[in-house]
Amino acid sequence: MSAFDELIAHARETVALGQVAGRLGWDQETMMPPGAAPQRAEESAAMSSVLHARNCNPKVADWLDAADAPDEAGAANMRQIRRAHERATKVPAKLAAEIARVTSLSQGIWAEARAKQDFAAFAPTLSRVVALKREEAEALSDGRSLYDTCLDDFEEGMTSETLAAMFAVLRPRLVALKDRLLGAPAPEALRGQFDENEQVRLATDIATRFGYDFKHGRLDKAVHPFSSGSGLDVRITTRTDAADPFNCLYSTIHEVGHAHYEQGIDAAYLLTPIGRGASMGVHESQSRIFENQLGRSRAFTGWLFGAMSERFGPLTTPDADAFYAAVNRVGAGYIRTEADEVHYNLHILMRSDLERGLIEGTLAVDDLPEAWNQRFEADFGVAVDKPSHGCLQDVHWSVGLFGYFPTYTLGNVYAGCLHAALREALPDLDADLAKGDPSAAVTWLRQNLQVHGSLRAPQDTIAQAIGKAPTAEPLLDYLEAKFGALYGL
Amino acid sequence: MSAFDELIAHARETVALGQVAGRLGWDQETMMPPGAAPQRAEESAAMSSVLHARNCNPKVADWLDAADAPDEAGAANMRQIRRAHERATKVPAKLAAEIARVTSLSQGIWAEARAKQDFAAFAPTLSRVVALKREEAEALSDGRSLYDTCLDDFEEGMTSETLAAMFAVLRPRLVALKDRLLGAPAPEALRGQFDENEQVRLATDIATRFGYDFKHGRLDKAVHPFSSGSGLDVRITTRTDAADPFNCLYSTIHEVGHAHYEQGIDAAYLLTPIGRGASMGVHESQSRIFENQLGRSRAFTGWLFGAMSERFGPLTTPDADAFYAAVNRVGAGYIRTEADEVHYNLHILMRSDLERGLIEGTLAVDDLPEAWNQRFEADFGVAVDKPSHGCLQDVHWSVGLFGYFPTYTLGNVYAGCLHAALREALPDLDADLAKGDPSAAVTWLRQNLQVHGSLRAPQDTIAQAIGKAPTAEPLLDYLEAKFGALYGL
Repeated sequence: MSAFDELIAHARETVALGQVAGRLGWDQETMMPPGAAPQRAEESAAMSSVLHARNCNPKVADWLDAADAPDEAGAANMRQIRRAHERATKVPAKLAAEIARVTSLSQGIWAEARAKQDFAAFAPTLSRVVALKREEAEALSDGRSLYDTCLDDFEEGMTSETLAAMFAVLRPRLVALKDRLLGAPAPEALRGQFDENEQVRLATDIATRFGYDFKHGRLDKAVHPFSSGSGLDVRITTRTDAADPFNCLYSTIHEVGHAHYEQGIDAAYLLTPIGRGASMGVHESQSRIFENQLGRSRAFTGWLFGAMSERFGPLTTPDADAFYAAVNRVGAGYIRTEADEVHYNLHILMRSDLERGLIEGTLAVDDLPEAWNQRFEADFGVAVDKPSHGCLQDVHWSVGLFGYFPTYTLGNVYAGCLHAALREALPDLDADLAKGDPSAAVTWLRQNLQVHGSLRAPQDTIAQAIGKAPTAEPLLDYLEAKFGALYGL
Repeated sequence: MSAFDELIAHARETVALGQVAGRLGWDQETMMPPGAAPQRAEESAAMSSVLHARNCNPKVADWLDAADAPDEAGAANMRQIRRAHERATKVPAKLAAEIARVTSLSQGIWAEARAKQDFAAFAPTLSRVVALKREEAEALSDGRSLYDTCLDDFEEGMTSETLAAMFAVLRPRLVALKDRLLGAPAPEALRGQFDENEQVRLATDIATRFGYDFKHGRLDKAVHPFSSGSGLDVRITTRTDAADPFNCLYSTIHEVGHAHYEQGIDAAYLLTPIGRGASMGVHESQSRIFENQLGRSRAFTGWLFGAMSERFGPLTTPDADAFYAAVNRVGAGYIRTEADEVHYNLHILMRSDLERGLIEGTLAVDDLPEAWNQRFEADFGVAVDKPSHGCLQDVHWSVGLFGYFPTYTLGNVYAGCLHAALREALPDLDADLAKGDPSAAVTWLRQNLQVHGSLRAPQDTIAQAIGKAPTAEPLLDYLEAKFGALYGL
């Protein structure tokens, strides 16, 4: 076997083991008996240690030195393998173990502090996590700033500079838009009780319409919906609330966006490093365009109004326009995960700025609550009433995820660009969507983006699909047009 | 860390990874999307290769040489680790890979041959499997006969000699007993249609009565019921047939026997090599005593008659005695998995004798159908009508499981011994069973056997529980007494 073939064979096995580890996570959230947690912790740790050892294997470096890539996909796989190998070998084993140890405990400490509204109880742990992640970033930085190093972990090639420029465009227009919308009369919400099994049946129908392939996946319930797996086994989850059917339906469409991406990658890349989504941001672009630009469009909600009326009887929203307005109600709220399309990115922008401060050392952990509350009031016009509505609301920092938040907004920005491009390519899309048929749109996304997996760097993946570099403007234009019209402004 | 601590830490991680691999198998039979099979094959192969590499790790030999066991459990763990290490290192890697490759294909060839009633289509593959398993046994034999080597793989310390002596006692009395029973009028079977969801609810209730801990397990459906996992996560499966509720109920009790064993092992052994059942035979003793000696007893079926009447309405068996007779109907049949308590071991005895011939080279694969059919007619008094009712019925040989069949009968023999001992210890057991309460019996089994896991060799595990070496007589005495009374002989 050539060095290249050895390298790819080793990587295939690593990817397969990564799939096993991922499915263990799926099992934990959907199927695991409640008393199994302590054993599961050891099982997951053993899988992590196997994967880490494989990525560190010195033979990988030898193969990389000796291998010649036969084609573009081979070169892309080599780039991904080198990236994982360098990441695994540059971080001292002792530091990696300490991060694993601390972050496995800190999530529980965070959850307790949140429940008790007690930031001080969490602060020492968060300080320790920040210090460790700074140390890790130092080891990986290679001359880059610490936060750029963190960003690159989730979104290859992304920098603070690029983000700052994007945020500078987003923030003022988003603040101005939400101010205008909140000044207008709010539309009625959908009210009533909706059978939860029927919600899941409708979600299953919608998932199929959006191209989710149940032959290579399944839909289960989980407390926090997620998508899991690549290739031939990509599973999604949802949740139900009798009073809020949109929670189930739109979380399903969101996860179908992620899953459709993984299910649509070129079969030739199966179980190789490029046989998965290009980055967190590109992934989120797929889930968000499915959920928002397609799923929350006037055309598709027109079909959904009929489908829900048929399944649940007459709705409190008298017609499709009122239903569309209910789906897209805008409101200021403390909680990121409940935010509407307009407010969502304002939540992300503030978290991104704050975490950059924490990692760069310009914001002390003890000063975080005040910094959070000031920024929230400035952007949202509301004072934070308690820590669980403020800087204790998200799990991310407790488990060391710094550099992850921006990928949510990147995903929305990419989705805005992709939506503009696909509307241009598919001028009659609304007629399909009005019949509950998003297949032309998801096929366009598959052909122009999803099929390529991680063949290219994240920004290049988007640029290749839309024919230019991604910018924030299409998202802003879309939001202003959609919500301006909806609120009659 | 001491050599012993290093050894145990390594073994714990190996056991944890083994649990992950096992759960992957569970997922495949219960949850996996149908189109995921090709990817799953690579995932499972990757897990096997990781486990094999760990068992072969030369450091394990160094640690074993240098380690001092601090106590009996430590010594037992070292014995198990040594056993796995020697097995993994003695078989040449090339041979192990060839066995894995051939047996992964041969199951499909067997299934097709069985469907087409075409033994000749399977014979070349079976010959190859037999040749490879003989080669493997050579590598492992250490002076033992090839079949003894195979036996030891599934039941440590078991020999052809011990088996032959046991079979010589079993066969004539079993043949004589079934002849007497088949000469008497057969009792009525239970007839009717039984709601399948209600069957599962009743099975869940019964599983709980037999001590299955749902906090550390779950019950799902599978085509072939099985139990999976050790320690804090031990899952069971069942199947349903509207016309045959006993299929669901008794397969559940059987799997609960296996699972109760794994759930009851000393918590101090969790995720160490001795933290699992002592052998296939000892495992089967637990499933069979739960299913047969307890579950099919007159006392317990008395309760079950009431419980089923309550859930399903009046039964076609008019009273508890008729119901007991229906549960325990004896009949000659071709298929092992459908056999009653009396015929079951006759199926196993013939398979054990035939496979010993195949492995020892005294029976050629081409002569197998004739040898099977002759023996079947001699023991069962019926001529085999087609290969799927004959030597093509079981999957075992196609996947290289030689030495496995005898553990079924060993399990029944051990169950006979344990049942005699527990009846002596619990003279009032029937009063409990008649109330649907087997807790005293399963607690006795837990305290006297299950809690010890693999601390001792299989036969010692039984001997320790019953106070003497196991023999076939208690099983035969039990069968003759039970079925003699039932058939009024």
